[in-house]
Amino acid sequence: MGKLSDSEIEKKLNDFQGWTYAKNAIHTSFQFENFKEAFTVMTRIAFEAEALQHHPNWANSYNEVEISLSTHDEDGVTEKDFKLARAIEDIIEASN
Amino acid sequence: MGKLSDSEIEKKLNDFQGWTYAKNAIHTSFQFENFKEAFTVMTRIAFEAEALQHHPNWANSYNEVEISLSTHDEDGVTEKDFKLARAIEDIIEASN
Repeated sequence: MGKLSDSEIEKKLNDFQGWTYAKNAIHTSFQFENFKEAFTVMTRIAFEAEALQHHPNWANSYNEVEISLSTHDEDGVTEKDFKLARAIEDIIEASN
Repeated sequence: MGKLSDSEIEKKLNDFQGWTYAKNAIHTSFQFENFKEAFTVMTRIAFEAEALQHHPNWANSYNEVEISLSTHDEDGVTEKDFKLARAIEDIIEASN
């Protein structure tokens, strides 16, 4: 799977809410009720990422989770990132 | 528990390997074999942080984990941070 063009990425992001494209990666962030809720969702995402063998760059501070997705080998954004982004959105939706 | 002074923090850090003090927080990072190992250790730390009701600012990228500890309410480093740092070190040691 090759690196997507800027216009391909922007077009795909139309199907997502709250994601942005910058610095060769796609980014989002979420706020939860507290640390436990945030880390619970992170754990679900971790299992999914491991299953996909594609992993996020992410940071957590108490109830906040920041996520960036890119494909290291392609130095940019690929279909793998959108697959993981969709999985993340599904997990978030199921947690609400 | 109040904010520790720079000299108190530096003195306490002598008991830790691989931690630094900068920007009103103490910092460390770890590398693991892969994502699964990294997230397994993060999960252990998450449970300990929740038990202590004191949580890290941290980031993960594949097998790397960066951790910063500070006490928001005191705008600096307190005994709470060193308690969590010690717990993190114990978890890392047990995982090796």
